[in-house]
Amino acid sequence: MTDPTQVIIDHQMMHRALQLGRRGMLTTAPNPAVGCVITQQQKIIGEGWHQRAGQPHAEVHAIAAAAGQTKGATAYVTLEPCSHFGRTPPCVNALIDAGVARVVVAMEDPNPQVAGKGIARLREAGIDVEVGILEQAARALNPGFIHRMTTQLPWLRLKMAASLDARTALANGESQWITSPQARADVQYWRAHADAILTGADTVLADNPRLTVRAEQWPASRPLPDPLKQPVRIIIDGQNRIHDQLALFEQPGPVWLVRHEEADASRHSHCHQVIVRRTANGNVDLHDMMLELALREINLIWTECGARLAGALCDAGLVNEVYLYQSNQLLGSDARGVVDLTSLTALTQAPRIRITDRRQVGPDTRIIGIPQNQQ
Amino acid sequence: MTDPTQVIIDHQMMHRALQLGRRGMLTTAPNPAVGCVITQQQKIIGEGWHQRAGQPHAEVHAIAAAAGQTKGATAYVTLEPCSHFGRTPPCVNALIDAGVARVVVAMEDPNPQVAGKGIARLREAGIDVEVGILEQAARALNPGFIHRMTTQLPWLRLKMAASLDARTALANGESQWITSPQARADVQYWRAHADAILTGADTVLADNPRLTVRAEQWPASRPLPDPLKQPVRIIIDGQNRIHDQLALFEQPGPVWLVRHEEADASRHSHCHQVIVRRTANGNVDLHDMMLELALREINLIWTECGARLAGALCDAGLVNEVYLYQSNQLLGSDARGVVDLTSLTALTQAPRIRITDRRQVGPDTRIIGIPQNQQ
Repeated sequence: MTDPTQVIIDHQMMHRALQLGRRGMLTTAPNPAVGCVITQQQKIIGEGWHQRAGQPHAEVHAIAAAAGQTKGATAYVTLEPCSHFGRTPPCVNALIDAGVARVVVAMEDPNPQVAGKGIARLREAGIDVEVGILEQAARALNPGFIHRMTTQLPWLRLKMAASLDARTALANGESQWITSPQARADVQYWRAHADAILTGADTVLADNPRLTVRAEQWPASRPLPDPLKQPVRIIIDGQNRIHDQLALFEQPGPVWLVRHEEADASRHSHCHQVIVRRTANGNVDLHDMMLELALREINLIWTECGARLAGALCDAGLVNEVYLYQSNQLLGSDARGVVDLTSLTALTQAPRIRITDRRQVGPDTRIIGIPQNQQ
Repeated sequence: MTDPTQVIIDHQMMHRALQLGRRGMLTTAPNPAVGCVITQQQKIIGEGWHQRAGQPHAEVHAIAAAAGQTKGATAYVTLEPCSHFGRTPPCVNALIDAGVARVVVAMEDPNPQVAGKGIARLREAGIDVEVGILEQAARALNPGFIHRMTTQLPWLRLKMAASLDARTALANGESQWITSPQARADVQYWRAHADAILTGADTVLADNPRLTVRAEQWPASRPLPDPLKQPVRIIIDGQNRIHDQLALFEQPGPVWLVRHEEADASRHSHCHQVIVRRTANGNVDLHDMMLELALREINLIWTECGARLAGALCDAGLVNEVYLYQSNQLLGSDARGVVDLTSLTALTQAPRIRITDRRQVGPDTRIIGIPQNQQ
């Protein structure tokens, strides 16, 4: 029934809306990144994207940019317009007030409690609504937000850096700079996508890292976000060993300590303790921790940690994406491994990774994949 | 000075000669694979390639195919024509007798004792000779032959198959089928390129492998060579543990045992013992072994072995190419590693691999690379 030319135009316009939405990927948290395009007679008359939580949504920006010419227009939005009063008034009202005749939506709101309500409101107002154009690309815009809305857990990316034979350090512990400056710059870029950087107390006490996103290491090929947001730094500290004299606390940005009980934390004013349950063997219950972090609106977690925590996260089925940076060295079997999987007793249990991206980063290779126990 | 059109024609014709030469890659050992094209007025009038040691060389086939029209012709040969009587008369004589006016050669003979002699003989006979067109591609035709001629050592390819975290077996030893049927079919193809398949007694006694090239596992995308040549199977057996009751001996094709001293080997009629020196700590001297194998005209070795022998070959600088088949599983740090590098005490000593090819093979990845201590 749909005119084929219209289908092509719809895809082109939604593609543009997705481009606009991507501009917000490093700044909108905990809100989703959203883009919007408004057209008249198949020409763009207004564009907008959501920039920061608390500021206007993409639709409002696009309507403003169209400057009063929106009567009978078509709006393309990468996410179902909101129908509730949050920090800003609902976007469906703005679209209805603007007099648009047609709204094309890439995907429904992932929150099952409100999904479809915005679309229904638009239809009730007599607006023609189409849903599902470039939905997969729209989902890729907000993996963390969508995952939290649908599972009440943050989306967790596990970063690993290792040699070609998957070792992270020599047997004697020497580990500095296994991967290249280019790979380390790429890590800065992905850190910036996350709401939080997660690691364990062992790593913090051994390496004394800063765990910040650093402008001076930002990859030259990527625009530097302005301002450069610092993810929350979350340290799993089940034995209350994190103390004040760490490089972590000399950097701006919040630090959260995941503990079983409150303890003296730090004079650092942004230090916060997340209290979680113990497992039967006395460790931090990682699933409980993830639920607690989701309640604090953490959508996307970037994890850089040792083989033990990496393995525990894998065993708990909490790893949603793996980022493996592989250098071209061989370090030998005595060297330290990348992930401890203590529960594994048969090959059939070995977690499989569906590889979604594999590319050269400087002299190294970056492999991105999704563990098969995940969707 | 050279006409640019002629340069293009020369490259096209040499390209064709290389294509022809490749047809012999699985059958000419210990001779090099060579292709030849003969042209008159930029049209091909004869083609040939070397098919098997003892049979005519590429040039002779091409001259025969040109059927008496070779007077004033141009011959393209991927390797300098031979000037000595070996199993067949010298090809330079055949080219001179055929009356060709010009010979284009991709590369000189790699044997330093005869390099340039064939070219000089042709020039003495008044033939115009050009050398170096598509030389790199011509070298790729015969890595083993060239390496043995220039270093008196075989070219050694080390095959490794491992999980994404570079493990070859679970801690409990379970290891069957970490990589896919497609990867195992690819291994058959590369085994067939080799003059010998090398492994250690530990692997033979533990896994009882056949170490043959199997037609029924040959990759569907590759033409099956006819006949399918069986590489020599070479077992490093410094403690004389290899006995008669092994699957190895139930298959056709020679078996060589690398030992320190002659011992009861096998009733198997093709079993041969290669006697080599001990190292200071009583192991097989791998460098001495390689010299002995080169003396027996082994150009190209395909190695499938355990982490200990793999590491010893790396440490000895004898690995010329690495073939790493990587599955998409994680097996964990407790599982068995792919290569033991006992001598490694600092990251700066870690061998680096220059990656020359990386591609998908079924669900697995195949990485080919050259250790940086090699050329």
